[in-house]
Amino acid sequence: MRIVVLAGGIGGARFLLGVRAYAREVGAEVTAVVNVGDDLWLHGLKICPDLDSVMYTLGGGADPERGWGRVGEGWTVKEELAAYGAEPTWFGLGDKDIATHLVRSTMLNAGYPLHAVTEALATRWQPGVRLLPATDDRLETHAIVSARSEPASPAVANSAGTADDDKGQRAIHFQEWWVRYRADIPTHRFVFVGAETAKPAPGVLEAIGTADLVLVAPSNPVVSVAPVLAVPGLREAVAAGPAPVVGISPIIGGAPVRGMADRCLAVLGVECSAAGVGRLYGGRAAGGLLDGWLVAEEDAGTLVPEVTVRAVPLRMTDEAATAAMVRAAVELT
Amino acid sequence: MRIVVLAGGIGGARFLLGVRAYAREVGAEVTAVVNVGDDLWLHGLKICPDLDSVMYTLGGGADPERGWGRVGEGWTVKEELAAYGAEPTWFGLGDKDIATHLVRSTMLNAGYPLHAVTEALATRWQPGVRLLPATDDRLETHAIVSARSEPASPAVANSAGTADDDKGQRAIHFQEWWVRYRADIPTHRFVFVGAETAKPAPGVLEAIGTADLVLVAPSNPVVSVAPVLAVPGLREAVAAGPAPVVGISPIIGGAPVRGMADRCLAVLGVECSAAGVGRLYGGRAAGGLLDGWLVAEEDAGTLVPEVTVRAVPLRMTDEAATAAMVRAAVELT
Repeated sequence: MRIVVLAGGIGGARFLLGVRAYAREVGAEVTAVVNVGDDLWLHGLKICPDLDSVMYTLGGGADPERGWGRVGEGWTVKEELAAYGAEPTWFGLGDKDIATHLVRSTMLNAGYPLHAVTEALATRWQPGVRLLPATDDRLETHAIVSARSEPASPAVANSAGTADDDKGQRAIHFQEWWVRYRADIPTHRFVFVGAETAKPAPGVLEAIGTADLVLVAPSNPVVSVAPVLAVPGLREAVAAGPAPVVGISPIIGGAPVRGMADRCLAVLGVECSAAGVGRLYGGRAAGGLLDGWLVAEEDAGTLVPEVTVRAVPLRMTDEAATAAMVRAAVELT
Repeated sequence: MRIVVLAGGIGGARFLLGVRAYAREVGAEVTAVVNVGDDLWLHGLKICPDLDSVMYTLGGGADPERGWGRVGEGWTVKEELAAYGAEPTWFGLGDKDIATHLVRSTMLNAGYPLHAVTEALATRWQPGVRLLPATDDRLETHAIVSARSEPASPAVANSAGTADDDKGQRAIHFQEWWVRYRADIPTHRFVFVGAETAKPAPGVLEAIGTADLVLVAPSNPVVSVAPVLAVPGLREAVAAGPAPVVGISPIIGGAPVRGMADRCLAVLGVECSAAGVGRLYGGRAAGGLLDGWLVAEEDAGTLVPEVTVRAVPLRMTDEAATAAMVRAAVELT
């Protein structure tokens, strides 16, 4: 059995722990296609927050309390950068984490594509799951926010433009929106810079085309899963592929389990509910993505047109509970 | 009064503490022209060991025990890089130190020349001395060693070639020779890669041309001072300049005070003595560099043709003792 999981960062990582546990039980192979829209260059380092969250979590090196970054992390480099006045200071670069970024950046600058770098880093972490970036190309999530007098951080300025435009709007990198502003500024929409010309990373379309099941992790649908699907050809491969597609709702009882999906959904005008996200993905028979949609027990009765909905326990309290979610997804198909 | 000091790393840094103390006493301005031959790119970071030793020492951030790097340093990033198998592992990259390299590398990659980067870094450290790299250009000290079966570290491979040539020799970066091999492999000579086309950094020739005194720090004459003098026009500016030139012997009683100058001198076939180094620099009136040469009391009687030699205490035990050396140099002129 071959399972492909479309995943973002922390939610995706925890879900993948359960997928891996299930896969070990039944002898399945797992490929995770991971969001790169959060990626950014800071201080000359290429940081891939979602790939790293997945790699560290599956490799046993993640901080279980904080959710992101490495366990037992130190902050010496960050403090020293601040002492130099090096901007930006709002992004948490841990000492252990920096080694990952140094290795990645050196390889990228030497010409290796991101999927090859990811594979090389994974030789240390042995995640037990094949990790693929959605694309090797630049595909960066930006938030279009209302103009403010304060300029965007120059370190993350880029071709999408950070200057106020004539509509009184400006684009900021997703990380600036999420980490610096806590998603708490007037926001018009999200754009995936570079999406038009991005290509699926080698192996992505092949994995989807030969999968027995595609799972959409309970990741943020707007800024984790949508940038994966924004890679030209990727959504089409899933929608037209041979495998049934089952999504797991990241919203339980009208609230995100973790993170700020509510604020992201509000930007799109989508109701923050299991039904809202299910309808956002849409039923495959109606031109959307899903065959099945797992919702939490408290969301029983959720209806999504053309999608089989089942209510099961959805709290990822441990690997066994998460593996049970995966089993429910398999049984739904 | 304007004093220019030609300096390498640790010895140069400690000497500059004394120069600064003397300058504060008499109201002099000090410009340090610092060796860049030791500089290297590692893990995508530009490291300038001599500039950093000087900056950290004068800024009060150096480790007084180890001699190089930052006080209270940690090694998390280094350990993590090793866990990834990232070569080379023989170079000591401390966590605090890495922040300096990140800021420097980001600025260099953005197009700032090294002297501007050095000035920017110094705004934090306030060294009280103007720090100038000898050149903004690449000028890298390599050791030509006998061919061995073990290849040079690929991370420091470069255009000088690391492959064995037809004479059974290969070039390795100075840091590899010094740190990895502890200067303890058969060595034929040193070359300063890029020296032919390097230009003195902005301000260097002006400082030398308007100096009232040029001091040659008790740094390694072969791999610290020689690469400074190898920048085209720099040696000529000193030799033809208006200021008297006084050197301070790094050799006391036939042995280097610190470091491995003996091994470097041996490569050149120069006797490891105050006289040997004094003659290596040579008297200005005889086509060399020096007007005066300070040697240690135990080396009283040293003769260097055309050079005024004086024996004084030369141990840099504290700033006052070092300032006394500077005063002796001034009095020699």
